[in-house]
Amino acid sequence: MSVMKPVTKWADSCYDTRRIPEYIEMGIRHAVSGNPGPAFLEVPIDVLSGEVEMEDVRFPKMRTEPPILIPARESVVEALEILRGAKKPVMMAGTSVKWSNAASKLQAFIEKTHIPTFVNGMGRGTVKPGTPELMTRVRKEAMQQCDVFICAGVLLDFRLGFGRSIPADAKIIQMDIENELIGTNRSADAAIVGNLAMSFTQMMEVMDEAGDNIDHTSWRDQLIEREQELESAFAANLNSDEVPIDPLRLCREIRDFVADKDVILIGDGGDIVAQASKVLPVPAENCWMDPGPLGTLGVGMPFALAAQLSRPDKRVLIIYGDGSFGLNGFEYDTAVRFDLPIVGIVGVDGVWGQMIRPQAAIYGANRIVATKLNFTRYDKIVEAMGGHGEYCERPEEIGPALERAFASGKPALVNVVMRQDIESGMKGSTYT
Amino acid sequence: MSVMKPVTKWADSCYDTRRIPEYIEMGIRHAVSGNPGPAFLEVPIDVLSGEVEMEDVRFPKMRTEPPILIPARESVVEALEILRGAKKPVMMAGTSVKWSNAASKLQAFIEKTHIPTFVNGMGRGTVKPGTPELMTRVRKEAMQQCDVFICAGVLLDFRLGFGRSIPADAKIIQMDIENELIGTNRSADAAIVGNLAMSFTQMMEVMDEAGDNIDHTSWRDQLIEREQELESAFAANLNSDEVPIDPLRLCREIRDFVADKDVILIGDGGDIVAQASKVLPVPAENCWMDPGPLGTLGVGMPFALAAQLSRPDKRVLIIYGDGSFGLNGFEYDTAVRFDLPIVGIVGVDGVWGQMIRPQAAIYGANRIVATKLNFTRYDKIVEAMGGHGEYCERPEEIGPALERAFASGKPALVNVVMRQDIESGMKGSTYT
Amino acid sequence: MSVMKPVTKWADSCYDTRRIPEYIEMGIRHAVSGNPGPAFLEVPIDVLSGEVEMEDVRFPKMRTEPPILIPARESVVEALEILRGAKKPVMMAGTSVKWSNAASKLQAFIEKTHIPTFVNGMGRGTVKPGTPELMTRVRKEAMQQCDVFICAGVLLDFRLGFGRSIPADAKIIQMDIENELIGTNRSADAAIVGNLAMSFTQMMEVMDEAGDNIDHTSWRDQLIEREQELESAFAANLNSDEVPIDPLRLCREIRDFVADKDVILIGDGGDIVAQASKVLPVPAENCWMDPGPLGTLGVGMPFALAAQLSRPDKRVLIIYGDGSFGLNGFEYDTAVRFDLPIVGIVGVDGVWGQMIRPQAAIYGANRIVATKLNFTRYDKIVEAMGGHGEYCERPEEIGPALERAFASGKPALVNVVMRQDIESGMKGSTYT
Amino acid sequence: MSVMKPVTKWADSCYDTRRIPEYIEMGIRHAVSGNPGPAFLEVPIDVLSGEVEMEDVRFPKMRTEPPILIPARESVVEALEILRGAKKPVMMAGTSVKWSNAASKLQAFIEKTHIPTFVNGMGRGTVKPGTPELMTRVRKEAMQQCDVFICAGVLLDFRLGFGRSIPADAKIIQMDIENELIGTNRSADAAIVGNLAMSFTQMMEVMDEAGDNIDHTSWRDQLIEREQELESAFAANLNSDEVPIDPLRLCREIRDFVADKDVILIGDGGDIVAQASKVLPVPAENCWMDPGPLGTLGVGMPFALAAQLSRPDKRVLIIYGDGSFGLNGFEYDTAVRFDLPIVGIVGVDGVWGQMIRPQAAIYGANRIVATKLNFTRYDKIVEAMGGHGEYCERPEEIGPALERAFASGKPALVNVVMRQDIESGMKGSTYT
Repeated sequence: MSVMKPVTKWADSCYDTRRIPEYIEMGIRHAVSGNPGPAFLEVPIDVLSGEVEMEDVRFPKMRTEPPILIPARESVVEALEILRGAKKPVMMAGTSVKWSNAASKLQAFIEKTHIPTFVNGMGRGTVKPGTPELMTRVRKEAMQQCDVFICAGVLLDFRLGFGRSIPADAKIIQMDIENELIGTNRSADAAIVGNLAMSFTQMMEVMDEAGDNIDHTSWRDQLIEREQELESAFAANLNSDEVPIDPLRLCREIRDFVADKDVILIGDGGDIVAQASKVLPVPAENCWMDPGPLGTLGVGMPFALAAQLSRPDKRVLIIYGDGSFGLNGFEYDTAVRFDLPIVGIVGVDGVWGQMIRPQAAIYGANRIVATKLNFTRYDKIVEAMGGHGEYCERPEEIGPALERAFASGKPALVNVVMRQDIESGMKGSTYT
Repeated sequence: MSVMKPVTKWADSCYDTRRIPEYIEMGIRHAVSGNPGPAFLEVPIDVLSGEVEMEDVRFPKMRTEPPILIPARESVVEALEILRGAKKPVMMAGTSVKWSNAASKLQAFIEKTHIPTFVNGMGRGTVKPGTPELMTRVRKEAMQQCDVFICAGVLLDFRLGFGRSIPADAKIIQMDIENELIGTNRSADAAIVGNLAMSFTQMMEVMDEAGDNIDHTSWRDQLIEREQELESAFAANLNSDEVPIDPLRLCREIRDFVADKDVILIGDGGDIVAQASKVLPVPAENCWMDPGPLGTLGVGMPFALAAQLSRPDKRVLIIYGDGSFGLNGFEYDTAVRFDLPIVGIVGVDGVWGQMIRPQAAIYGANRIVATKLNFTRYDKIVEAMGGHGEYCERPEEIGPALERAFASGKPALVNVVMRQDIESGMKGSTYT
Repeated sequence: MSVMKPVTKWADSCYDTRRIPEYIEMGIRHAVSGNPGPAFLEVPIDVLSGEVEMEDVRFPKMRTEPPILIPARESVVEALEILRGAKKPVMMAGTSVKWSNAASKLQAFIEKTHIPTFVNGMGRGTVKPGTPELMTRVRKEAMQQCDVFICAGVLLDFRLGFGRSIPADAKIIQMDIENELIGTNRSADAAIVGNLAMSFTQMMEVMDEAGDNIDHTSWRDQLIEREQELESAFAANLNSDEVPIDPLRLCREIRDFVADKDVILIGDGGDIVAQASKVLPVPAENCWMDPGPLGTLGVGMPFALAAQLSRPDKRVLIIYGDGSFGLNGFEYDTAVRFDLPIVGIVGVDGVWGQMIRPQAAIYGANRIVATKLNFTRYDKIVEAMGGHGEYCERPEEIGPALERAFASGKPALVNVVMRQDIESGMKGSTYT
Repeated sequence: MSVMKPVTKWADSCYDTRRIPEYIEMGIRHAVSGNPGPAFLEVPIDVLSGEVEMEDVRFPKMRTEPPILIPARESVVEALEILRGAKKPVMMAGTSVKWSNAASKLQAFIEKTHIPTFVNGMGRGTVKPGTPELMTRVRKEAMQQCDVFICAGVLLDFRLGFGRSIPADAKIIQMDIENELIGTNRSADAAIVGNLAMSFTQMMEVMDEAGDNIDHTSWRDQLIEREQELESAFAANLNSDEVPIDPLRLCREIRDFVADKDVILIGDGGDIVAQASKVLPVPAENCWMDPGPLGTLGVGMPFALAAQLSRPDKRVLIIYGDGSFGLNGFEYDTAVRFDLPIVGIVGVDGVWGQMIRPQAAIYGANRIVATKLNFTRYDKIVEAMGGHGEYCERPEEIGPALERAFASGKPALVNVVMRQDIESGMKGSTYT
């Protein structure tokens, strides 16, 4: 219990067999309220296996959906006053957009205002791919220039420099489900608390009533131009024919392969996932899962099992780093047991990249500790478990290997040997 | 820190002098969000007295008011469907009405529907005294007969038999600020989550739109009649001329005295406060404070000091039990120091009533432990501190003593010697 | 921190780079004191990478050995008074014998008194194999008959029926390092607190001084006779030629193989480890590690890596269940990377035995949940990682496979397909 | 529970009426083990009042005394090697001497070696008043000059400058009951862990065996001379005839009064207790209690009640500061109820001295917050409760007032008006 309390929204023990259903209801209630999160119920074995009369047990109504809360109109009006004065607004959409099921309202808001928009965290997938306002490469520049920044379910945490990536005199409009999150690391000039679908709806209603015509098409176009410049500079890197394979080339191969497919993508790694999220287009709604801000590696196959079981109509592709694969790669055994045709692709460079590069930079390449790996044949391990394996040493082998893996109808792994970058930093990595 | 965490909404330590303002903001933010509660910030002495450059410090915007959240219309519609079918609805208004500043909307809702209404906890004072629908004596009977029970910011905790005081087939409509509270101990058939002023407003709007005419005047009148019967039976007890003084007679004297005065009442005791809350009329808004559901005795003078300082235009009267007085009675010294003319009245029966009666009942009157007190002259103690003291042994002395105490312009205490009931239970007490 | 506190002897955070050595010393000090256990030190990354002047840092003396504490003579005298009256004493030696480095003194005490002795937990290996007083099979009977029971560093926990396996009128003599452990679940009639080597030494000194001649040879011989009867009954089961292989036959093969070798044995499993510990002789000192009383599965390869690195002169054999292998079997990759010739043998029956049998017994074999596994070729997985694999389906193949595995000089795994017992219980298992 | 855990040695809840005695035994066992401390057992009201069959309940043996542990001879030998080389050894005796009941062995050790000795914390009273080696005034100088410092059950905490009050090249010998305390804030060069009576005994035995003649008479005499110089300088301050009364004069009056009486002294205050402990002679064994290193004010009457009830043959005198008196002074009511002739003396200067002086020093005398008090007539409050009161404004009145208070046979309080020192610091206070 003491171990679970600090990492859950609610944790308790039930000491009375008759009250187990009540405790389950309490756990669900807390798990789904506000920003959802885990709840933990401990039932000692003697309580769990106790026998009771049915009539002594209360079976509460399970409310698995949280209530939808609407923000006060005043807060919306206040936010719009700030937005009206904006010349270069930028929006970042994140996790709470997803928990609010607010994707369609967010889309409508973007289409109405043409505010340049970025996504992060679980916000990936909440804006339709192809939306002109949806940008990626130009993020840093856009934030540096903006005069109003809309945090749509996004926190100004370390990923956004704790708010310092935005000019000190820019205004912040923050929208979130819970008041406790407003003002995290930097104060909001206006705050809209409530379900984000309701918040966007209200914003558009108030704009209509007020006859507002907020249209940032030209600011958007200016950024699109810059986005394309960066994209083409970057694209040059994607076509490397180097052997061992350049990580960006690997990502390009994945991008090309999934382009026309209905795939749930799951990232389980450090640098390779960071690279992939730069190269791959923003995915469709609910089609991206990754280790989250705390970098909890090992989520790949557990997430994939859940995704494949709940969406048997879709294919699932895990993008692995080799360090991550070692953590829960053994769960391919589970995929084999349940006959789930999940495909993984692992970029093997024989090191823990996000650890070894800072070590080398700070302490020198000769004082590296516990960050080297083998060039293990992970594909053969998966074959040994009864799955399908592929092994690639040259970039042009990746596409066909992925084809065969998807076609095999089995749990499959494509093992790609990459260039090992220790001292210089992966090209375009989070460390450059 | 470990000690504070379980009893606060938020507790943290600040280890960097420059970040103290940020931590204060975080504490306030958590304290005021949802149902408000205490937050705790620890600043080690070396951090507190550290010196820093002003420019290194971020002074965040302090948001001391929580956002007002509006319930989803669907939840209101669902609740009204239940209410439309009610023949004998009963409403209980509690703590979250106060935290929602919802008194005026609650009043309007009562006046529109004429639903018989009770108050408990911090809900006391949220319905105007004299409102015909506001009842007290008939509570038990009303709950036993009701077919729909509206928990307006009230939990079905031990004070309401964990929901078992209401018929099993009655429907529950629960309104509260936090979803985490919905369904506590008994499932709600409909739940309206959000600020309660907004919730009542929406209910009335939906009723108007639907052309509903919900009018429970006759059910209300039926209960009023019964209320008056109980009142007159009870009133007989209030006129006892017994010496030592009957606790109910003491309460009647207090009632008569405060009837025409603008007084903030503070209860600090067990049985005597339970009795007083039966005898005294429901007070005006924000004019009643007591030890709360956990019975945290000793709150009298601390609450009174805060009340008198923030409302210098009002008079403050503490109703003490003698056990409670011993806990923080010494704080009269503080009242003297700050020259605050707070008046207390203490019912002295020389025992810890709510402890000694169960002890006597369970273990026998000869096996009583640690529950006896002296008939201490608390009035003389207050005089020794520089306040005004009064001592009453006969019922007719109480009124004049209170008059003199209020007129003294000093912190004052009226010491009333009451009958000591150990085995039989105080007449009308919570144990009868 | 909150997560580590409940599972460590000491846990703290260091917020000052200069004080890191002091915190390390504190952690070590707490880890080694009393019965040793883990300590946890958290150093935030900015503190860890902070720069400080060497002269500002205090480098404390690291005391990695706990003090040796000698029991008071009175407690020894008191215990001996009880022991003198014993007709059928039984001793159980456990974990604190090991933490006290008391094996040689325990041995001397046994040889002096001839008290029949059993071992459990980390007490395994503290009595020399071949000591006539050291028994295994007759444990239950011996406990039922004893009149004095010596807990030598052993707790009367669930493994000893919380003390109820010993007659209510038998006397308990408990020896342990910490006073907090005395009387756990059943009161001790005499307690000797202190280092157990010191305690045994003092007992023998006091016996010598008092001219005591405590000699339980005949009681010992009586039990030896019974032990041999049980052994021969049991031995019959060890020779099964069944295919799939009987778990006890597997254990016999392991026993025969290790008989003449200097091997550290590590158990990582449920039933298979329970069976092996019945079949294999009690190992030499410090040559047995297992998941402990909480059954923390997955310890196999982590323990083996540590054992092999600290004792490069010895060979290491892990006895795996197939459920356990899945948890950390991937760490064979680490063994390959460090070139450690660790050998494992896994008994594969395709189920989580200690879970599935109670499930089948309580809920029926058709309501089994999450306890089935594949007959995975774990040997091939190890081969894929670069190790050596062996696969056995017939009992006579096991010995030669183990020979080849040890001879390979690589990390190796012998995969043995066993009979799958779901409903009946493994023969001789903990569930029969 | 979560609230109690961080401030107890053991805290748990019992959920089974039959097991209450077992839990009580566990609490006692943990409370008395090692350095004793509080344990906390929570029994929910329904468990507490549950009914069970007596035969289902196990009544464990309550072991209220911890075992006496003897240090290993090696550690004693090592410590003596250091001590043999000492020219100017100093010993400080503290809390663990008391918990070890080691006063007589400590006394013998001092008389054998003539090492200058100081006491602090609960070590006060463990050395006989009048022992020539027992010193007070010269502590600072002695520590600065010493080459070996013996921590006899004393921690090098803030009271000893975390060990920095002792020269860096001096050697530390630390004796304590628990290994966890060895090396706190400064490493020990030698450590003797075990009961301190046993440790002193062993030291003397080893010295005798080795024929050691450790005699520090001349070093002691050198310090005695200096002690007397400081005493006479200080003594001058004790005779002030100032009105309002000088705090040191008050302390002298107390000293003179108790000189020939068998009194348990209890300090409950900040500066006044610090002053009194400088002026009053070190008391007899078990005759001094104070707020301890954390300065937990308010302990006066609670400690006094316990002391008087357990030692009805002795008289009890509480030395109060006026801030402290306000915290639990109301408990005089309890003393009256139980007819306990406890006497208190309160030095009234109308401020919280240890708070107001640093406030004035740091922020200026005009920015003082929450540290002023009234010159309340605490004596009259005690009279109002039924006790005896005395009031003194002139130094010569104190002695006779104490006489009358002790003679009254009632709970009594002597109220002494002292000089109010805010800016300059009390003469000789902890702030000068």
